[in-house]
Amino acid sequence: MTSDLQPETINNTSNFNTTEKMNVGTLLFKRLSKVTKSVFGVPGDFNLKLLENIYKVPELKWVGNNNELNAAYVADGYSRINPHNFACLITTYGVGELSALNGIAGSFTENIGVLHIVGTSASRIKKMTSGLEEKDALFKQIHHLIPGPKSYSKQNHEVYENIVAPFSCVAERLTPEDVINGTIQFKIDNAISTVIKENKPGYLFIPSDISEDIVPCNLSLSLEPKRNEKLSFAEKEVLSTILNKIYEAKNVGLVADYFLKNDRENVENLLEKSKWPVYSTPGSRGLCFDESIENFKGVFCNETSHPNVLESVKNHDLILHLGSNINETSFRYYDPVKSKWLQDANIVFLGKEYAMFGFAKEIIKEIDGVKIFRELFKQIQYKKISEAPLNKTIPKFSNSYDLTSVNKIEDKLFENQLSYELSTNYLQENDIVICEMTSFTFEMENIKLPKNARAIAQGFYASIGYALPACVGVCKALKDYSLESKHRVVLIQGDGSAQMTLQEFSLFLAHDLKPVIFMLNNSGYTIERAIMGETSSYNDLTTNWKWTKIFEAFGDELKEKHESRTINNYTELKEYMQQDIDQEKLQMVELILQKCDYSNGLKTFLGKP
Amino acid sequence: MTSDLQPETINNTSNFNTTEKMNVGTLLFKRLSKVTKSVFGVPGDFNLKLLENIYKVPELKWVGNNNELNAAYVADGYSRINPHNFACLITTYGVGELSALNGIAGSFTENIGVLHIVGTSASRIKKMTSGLEEKDALFKQIHHLIPGPKSYSKQNHEVYENIVAPFSCVAERLTPEDVINGTIQFKIDNAISTVIKENKPGYLFIPSDISEDIVPCNLSLSLEPKRNEKLSFAEKEVLSTILNKIYEAKNVGLVADYFLKNDRENVENLLEKSKWPVYSTPGSRGLCFDESIENFKGVFCNETSHPNVLESVKNHDLILHLGSNINETSFRYYDPVKSKWLQDANIVFLGKEYAMFGFAKEIIKEIDGVKIFRELFKQIQYKKISEAPLNKTIPKFSNSYDLTSVNKIEDKLFENQLSYELSTNYLQENDIVICEMTSFTFEMENIKLPKNARAIAQGFYASIGYALPACVGVCKALKDYSLESKHRVVLIQGDGSAQMTLQEFSLFLAHDLKPVIFMLNNSGYTIERAIMGETSSYNDLTTNWKWTKIFEAFGDELKEKHESRTINNYTELKEYMQQDIDQEKLQMVELILQKCDYSNGLKTFLGKP
Ligand SMILES: Cc1ncc(C[n+]2csc(CCOP(=O)(O)OP(=O)(O)O)c2C)c(N)n1
Ligand SMILES: Cc1ncc(C[n+]2csc(CCOP(=O)(O)OP(=O)(O)O)c2C)c(N)n1
Repeated sequence: MTSDLQPETINNTSNFNTTEKMNVGTLLFKRLSKVTKSVFGVPGDFNLKLLENIYKVPELKWVGNNNELNAAYVADGYSRINPHNFACLITTYGVGELSALNGIAGSFTENIGVLHIVGTSASRIKKMTSGLEEKDALFKQIHHLIPGPKSYSKQNHEVYENIVAPFSCVAERLTPEDVINGTIQFKIDNAISTVIKENKPGYLFIPSDISEDIVPCNLSLSLEPKRNEKLSFAEKEVLSTILNKIYEAKNVGLVADYFLKNDRENVENLLEKSKWPVYSTPGSRGLCFDESIENFKGVFCNETSHPNVLESVKNHDLILHLGSNINETSFRYYDPVKSKWLQDANIVFLGKEYAMFGFAKEIIKEIDGVKIFRELFKQIQYKKISEAPLNKTIPKFSNSYDLTSVNKIEDKLFENQLSYELSTNYLQENDIVICEMTSFTFEMENIKLPKNARAIAQGFYASIGYALPACVGVCKALKDYSLESKHRVVLIQGDGSAQMTLQEFSLFLAHDLKPVIFMLNNSGYTIERAIMGETSSYNDLTTNWKWTKIFEAFGDELKEKHESRTINNYTELKEYMQQDIDQEKLQMVELILQKCDYSNGLKTFLGKP
Repeated sequence: MTSDLQPETINNTSNFNTTEKMNVGTLLFKRLSKVTKSVFGVPGDFNLKLLENIYKVPELKWVGNNNELNAAYVADGYSRINPHNFACLITTYGVGELSALNGIAGSFTENIGVLHIVGTSASRIKKMTSGLEEKDALFKQIHHLIPGPKSYSKQNHEVYENIVAPFSCVAERLTPEDVINGTIQFKIDNAISTVIKENKPGYLFIPSDISEDIVPCNLSLSLEPKRNEKLSFAEKEVLSTILNKIYEAKNVGLVADYFLKNDRENVENLLEKSKWPVYSTPGSRGLCFDESIENFKGVFCNETSHPNVLESVKNHDLILHLGSNINETSFRYYDPVKSKWLQDANIVFLGKEYAMFGFAKEIIKEIDGVKIFRELFKQIQYKKISEAPLNKTIPKFSNSYDLTSVNKIEDKLFENQLSYELSTNYLQENDIVICEMTSFTFEMENIKLPKNARAIAQGFYASIGYALPACVGVCKALKDYSLESKHRVVLIQGDGSAQMTLQEFSLFLAHDLKPVIFMLNNSGYTIERAIMGETSSYNDLTTNWKWTKIFEAFGDELKEKHESRTINNYTELKEYMQQDIDQEKLQMVELILQKCDYSNGLKTFLGKP
């Protein structure tokens, strides 16, 4: 994929204010500082020279991570809050970049813009080695770089670069030729703006001996991807078809999915004027509109939707599924029988770069879904819309459960009780709830979000351990962009998942970040137990972690920065949730749950009775 | 690469004791149990069905890890001790397998046999999807699997399998066709024995819906790779050239490098009879012979060898560099001027699958170096060997330093003091010393190993965080193979590195493993400070970890299983090193070092004055 940035404008050095020159490292960080305020990662001898230059750009701060996978997760969280939809991590050759790959794959899957910059072997060494015979190259094998198939094979300095294509939307390699040709800035800018435009990870490979080279630059060029404003013929067709459908319909329902995330204001405006019932999806909770509005009717996830919600959706004579991000955990099409209703539904999907009229009908490609939505928003004539008779049988989405379906046992604690309490007592306006891929994830659909609250999860890629570092990124971005006082951050973390990325807890201390952490201690991999091996040893954790002691071991022995407590039963939970907690400190709240406590949400998802 | 296993013998089901049948999962674990006793990894919904079968093979135990990268490191450590040179980890599709990739790359680089088994998407789903049109496949996107380049592209179920080639010596995929054709065991066996033969990682991909299928098997087939015993023409030529050189020389020196690791007895025998001076390399300390023998003259690492050692090596009129594993951190050829002596040296390299007569001369390929060595050992005629006049100027490698070069300050602690004390007071017979890639790594060359002690490090790939989980693997293998009482394990761990893989500490508790851990607390990335950014913030750690509290947070609050202490200065260190410590408990010994304490070894390596 290429960006809309016109190569002519910046590829040609004559367009540059050529009095301006600086070294590659400084230029990189200057450009990054336009779209982010923190850079994550881990140093290594292949990126040290580069990193030295970050201190020349005071607007940008280095935030060191404990390891590279965590750095990628932190960056992902940061990008979700950063108004530029962007984050950046820097790693070192091989050891660092490969460690981060799973995190990058997650961002690719979840459509998050993250630029992964890798310090690679020196171009001088690359060049020298490529000119050597095998017998001489044997004595020039360098560290962090895997050998070839035979122990005497020449090392392939591009071996790591060669595997990133499926995981990224852009991969730029800086070379000494770029220094000579003045194309360094073009490549840097292209990497940044493509990442932003595509909502996908990108790679920028920088040999260790290039960052000090002086190159021309033009710092005033914009990095925000430019969209071609005019609709193409196909886009016009799609738009007018949708508009006609809207005008014909009597009872329109809108599913606002992930790719509308940058159009929150437009969506809310449209909803106010159209009065359409609206649904979020498991992947867009609170993301594209405020779920406390009257129009909100619930979370649509096809077969596993709450029966009332599914009923309500089926009732529409036109379903606009806009910003569609179709996948197994968000859309949930599993059973052709249960999903039979879709065959006949008058449903329109408008995805990132396609449209579809009707379920599983022709994919109309090479269009820009967001652009069409924006144009729709501009062109729609509200007087032509029929106001649907508000379906009285479908209540405004209110509470997660009737009180009757919540477990009443008071001296133990169950996940359903937690979701009930979160919905009714705990969550506040503007809260950001980050939920790990745990049994509780499926309970999220039952949770009511207050005004402007939103949820974050890696629902589809579903790599456990993601949420904890992502929460660091979210909190850091809120701080960087002065939004910290507006949003409380609530992390709902599984114990098994927390094992994976445990060390990143230290960043909450290091950067004075103060989320509330609910640590769901259910002694193992409960979600897996529900699938198979309920009592099998492989679903146990490695040890009996002392969650309330963790921040002490990580440096806050005097509890200056954190508070911790254990909640053993429903009575204690209710008490805690009604308390006014000192939000000057990071909160670690360990919840002791049952080993095989499968929440209502999980049971529904797995089709368990 | 293919194994020497004859496909005829096992590919043909008629050779099977066809009364014997079992399901794929059980068969896999039965085969694994022939070459290992523990299986590492993390469960996930793509491998649960497979894992259930491990309980049917009581000889084999599941050892769950905290995350998959750590699992790969643990497996690497285990393989180094397992007499079969083998270890196995099991991960789940995408999220798990990618997390482990950096560890696998490390094993590939360091020549360690690790089989990585991945539970992948069901063959049923793979087949169904491949038959679908894009518009239908859109609604069949499955979790853990990255989407294609467009949000409507079909997912590529092989996308992860496609990247492993450079990181592995074998990759087998089980399919329903293998079930029908009776080739399941052939593929399993081939994966296992190729890994063992090549000392490299391999992959075995198992779709989630195959493990219950019943297949024929023959459990009596051997898994140990068979070498073709007869020497080829080229091998004979190499051998006779080497033998002639030996008989002609007056003063032979032997460098016993990594690939002689399975020939320890032969090497020691040869040394006893030949009386040759012998050297180890940084990558083979204590591995191929006992370094306490008279013949041992030091650690050869070319330019950065101790001057006495280099002098001694140069003095030989024939240098036999056998089992050669040439790389930047072990062989250390950097400066053509400093290494000029190599040009004229009468040196023979006998590598894994090549030989070379003279430095950087023609590579003689397609030979088996170990086989040639074994034949050399058999054929050599000791009476034809001239006994070298023992060079009186070169003392038997004794202490790391003269006492004069060790820092005398008593109220602080320096790395040189640690290496001195380890050499002179602390290390014992049979100790296994695992050293992290820290500033102290380069001090290892100055350490004297007692009788049958050996060192382990990931010296060339050099991914930090490796040593801690690798130590888990080493300890577990010693336990599994009843060697625990014979070997004390000493882990020398850097604080920055420990951050990376911290959670794996929990396995020492979970499995009652009792190494001594020296945690070098020098407040940051000292090795990087020595290279660049001595005071730059990127070389600081994320927090001020409380190392002595870590095992409490990880579950041993009552200190039933561990002891911890902090050592602040040289006086305290000396005292500790002379104490008789209760080895019934795991020991965490935090050493408070200076931020910029660059050891003698590191300075030499970096060419610092
Ligand atoms: C990196 C990775 N490894 C393994 C898995 C498989 N997996 C999915 S959920 C889960 C258990 C999560 O445990 P926990 O956080 O305790 O939540 P619980 O299921 O107990 O609610 C595992 C191991 C995964 N999704 N990602
Ligand atoms: C996975 C990985 N990330 C980054 C690096 C780069 N690196 C090499 S040594 C080192 C510092 C190690 O710190 P520590 O363990 O404290 O040892 P010290 O240098 O302080 O002795 C780093 C970050 C690496 N080798 N591997």
